[in-house]
Amino acid sequence: MKVVVKVGGRILKEGLDNILESVAGLYRSGYRVVFVHGGGDVVTEYCKKMGIESKFVVSPSGIRSRYTDRQELEVYVMVMAGLINKTVVARLERREVKAVGLCGADASIAEAERKKRILVVDEKGRKRIIEGGYTGRIVRVNTEIVETLLKQGYVPVVAPIAIGDGELLNVDGDQMASRLAVGISADALVFLTDVPGIIYEGKLVRKLSTKEAEALAQKIGFGMNRKVMLAAEAVEQGVSRAIIASGMVDNPVERALRGEGSVIES
Amino acid sequence: MKVVVKVGGRILKEGLDNILESVAGLYRSGYRVVFVHGGGDVVTEYCKKMGIESKFVVSPSGIRSRYTDRQELEVYVMVMAGLINKTVVARLERREVKAVGLCGADASIAEAERKKRILVVDEKGRKRIIEGGYTGRIVRVNTEIVETLLKQGYVPVVAPIAIGDGELLNVDGDQMASRLAVGISADALVFLTDVPGIIYEGKLVRKLSTKEAEALAQKIGFGMNRKVMLAAEAVEQGVSRAIIASGMVDNPVERALRGEGSVIES
Repeated sequence: MKVVVKVGGRILKEGLDNILESVAGLYRSGYRVVFVHGGGDVVTEYCKKMGIESKFVVSPSGIRSRYTDRQELEVYVMVMAGLINKTVVARLERREVKAVGLCGADASIAEAERKKRILVVDEKGRKRIIEGGYTGRIVRVNTEIVETLLKQGYVPVVAPIAIGDGELLNVDGDQMASRLAVGISADALVFLTDVPGIIYEGKLVRKLSTKEAEALAQKIGFGMNRKVMLAAEAVEQGVSRAIIASGMVDNPVERALRGEGSVIES
Repeated sequence: MKVVVKVGGRILKEGLDNILESVAGLYRSGYRVVFVHGGGDVVTEYCKKMGIESKFVVSPSGIRSRYTDRQELEVYVMVMAGLINKTVVARLERREVKAVGLCGADASIAEAERKKRILVVDEKGRKRIIEGGYTGRIVRVNTEIVETLLKQGYVPVVAPIAIGDGELLNVDGDQMASRLAVGISADALVFLTDVPGIIYEGKLVRKLSTKEAEALAQKIGFGMNRKVMLAAEAVEQGVSRAIIASGMVDNPVERALRGEGSVIES
């Protein structure tokens, strides 16, 4: 049983040990786990400490996203591949889980395409073309090393950094998890969040087909809509099921695998 | 042919691409290379950017060393395992060298003992016992993962961080290189520095036995004396030879392996 678990920044801060306890439990039961983390909030925090202002851009369709210049990329790499990644590794090792921290640049696990130029809307509502910054979209994963580690009983811990034209690039952690899950033909892809799953019209959506998930993604808030799309994509590409669930409960990964949360199956 | 190459902070800054070109050349010729880096200067630089003052302590025998508190450990981990480690990986990958960046906490490659309390001499010359900080001495290496990576054609790039009681610890990069070389039974351990080798009485010392190295270590400057001791230790414990050489010349690793520098053999 191979499982990719993605944990976002907010619950990393508040619930990391709880989640790692759950990962350790699965590991001891023989599950093979890949752990993908985010941490954007921590990057913003350290940028502030260094007097670097985080920049955000707005696309013509109204989507606001982080803009990564050279200086911020350095902080991004330090926080993601350094601080967060190795903290997770140390806390797993402390639980006698053999863990290896990596990012997508290692062994070119994740190759990304950097957007050379992007179209943004400025403060005055005017469209402008600017340099794309150090952000990328994952176009290819090479999971040989991840598979080797899993076979040898390690938990790969993966930071959301890819490589593109020999440069380190900031990539979306949810996308990393989705692509890796497809790459290793995972039995399950679990997104742990700070909500119980997909909430639509005030209610938790329990089960969805990929088609239903794609339709629903159009009607829900930003952030969750991306997760739902990436979850559906993974299932369409061979992952048995994707679950979006709460990371704030006891045994969050086991619960998610038991179906507590929103389960997307083909 | 297995080679461990250690590159210190100063030449990392000025000559990294030159050294990596040399590593890439060896890699293409079939050498198996482990790359260990330092980077203390960069840590100090980033501490300054964050308004953290680097602390140093002086031992009763007069040795001055960096003192790592919790806050500085974070910066240390960010810079070493994040920024420097992944920059090296990306630049190797750019040269089509398959590289995987790790630190000693990953898979518990390097286990260290943290000094709980240390004896220091304060500004007024008084001896005092203080908390040991997050610094460790490597007591054990577990090279299974390093060997696996080497066999599969990867260059492991290792940051000078170890794990001790489940905590990340700052360890000496030279010690990391020496222990890893012993752990994988390397054919050569190469320390690249900003000088041509061991200089004694104004001349480069070309060849030394381990006994001669240990005697000489007592008579030369701090920094180099540690390298010489660690080089001799590695050779005594089975590494065929250790070479201390310049990293500032063309093809520095090949030259070192041809014997340009100070060569320590049993």
